[in-house]
Amino acid sequence: MVERRGRGRPPTGDVADRRTAILDAARSMFAAKGFGGSSLRAIAREAGVDASLVSHYYGDKSQLLVATLQLPVDPIAKIASAVADGPDGMAERVLRAFLSSWDQHRDVFSTLIRTGLASDSSQEPVSQIARDVVTTMLSSALVGEGRELRASLMVSQVIGLATMRYVVQVEPLASASSEEVVQLYVPAMQHLIDAGGARSPGPSI
Amino acid sequence: MVERRGRGRPPTGDVADRRTAILDAARSMFAAKGFGGSSLRAIAREAGVDASLVSHYYGDKSQLLVATLQLPVDPIAKIASAVADGPDGMAERVLRAFLSSWDQHRDVFSTLIRTGLASDSSQEPVSQIARDVVTTMLSSALVGEGRELRASLMVSQVIGLATMRYVVQVEPLASASSEEVVQLYVPAMQHLIDAGGARSPGPSI
Repeated sequence: MVERRGRGRPPTGDVADRRTAILDAARSMFAAKGFGGSSLRAIAREAGVDASLVSHYYGDKSQLLVATLQLPVDPIAKIASAVADGPDGMAERVLRAFLSSWDQHRDVFSTLIRTGLASDSSQEPVSQIARDVVTTMLSSALVGEGRELRASLMVSQVIGLATMRYVVQVEPLASASSEEVVQLYVPAMQHLIDAGGARSPGPSI
Repeated sequence: MVERRGRGRPPTGDVADRRTAILDAARSMFAAKGFGGSSLRAIAREAGVDASLVSHYYGDKSQLLVATLQLPVDPIAKIASAVADGPDGMAERVLRAFLSSWDQHRDVFSTLIRTGLASDSSQEPVSQIARDVVTTMLSSALVGEGRELRASLMVSQVIGLATMRYVVQVEPLASASSEEVVQLYVPAMQHLIDAGGARSPGPSI
């Protein structure tokens, strides 16, 4: 891991300082240029470190964006695991992953939604994560027609659920067990997963 | 319509002034005491008018709460009409009513969501409407078990859709035709309507 002096601030002494410098530079750049307009290379330059160090500490650009929020759970790892086995049963895995992660951190998620949606900037990190990370990951895991539209409607269902359960706290949803929610909501989400028309062939022989 | 002098501010001269006084009093009381803790009688007293005048101008308590927001469409009338014919096909009527109302007023709805969710008060009017008006109306229109939970999940789907389409503006959802959205999202919502187990009997004879 070679570290070169970049054009931004000079490299700081220890690992903790360098990690902080990278997150600070990433926050500014994502806020100013959005997810699409930011690159690991430019963020590294701003932080005064080599680009390979950014990947070493934080992974890819999506992971770095999520890291700027310093969340108690890693949504990327959760989603990657939930979609790994393909469309069959994906809704149940996605919803269980979501609820088991955030039911324990309701206040954090509620604050994320409140502050994220309150901002009228489309570069706000929560909006960017919903749009450029979560929707993209789900879309890649779907098959058939209209994957992007179906993925964005899946995210709609999850954001709406979080809003009513954690932010507005509508009863009985706020106090319902995750099992009750899963039972009702999974078929509604699985419909969006299966609606692409590319089902596995039936037993034709 | 007899008007009596209330304990609050003295009755004002013309209809426009009285209507404004009622809305001002309603906004303060809903904010201070919530939907459940407010009454038309107390609001009338605060506005210095007779309670019958409040009903005459604004209808019932739900309608008065909605009136305080001065929206370009009347959600109560839209929902009442969408649920009037019962559970069969209700999801399609609800979604079409929602999209035809708000697609024309995206900015208004986006601002409602932003300001509504940004507030951390559970007495904030948008949260109260989601919880005490919309969820209650949908719940009353459902049949079978778990009506309240299913209604709150229907509202989750609608709020999530509005958030992704109007606030975060995720593509292709933001630009999709309402017809495309209806086609994919209706079966997902109708599942919640039909999940109560109280279906009409099959052709048993």
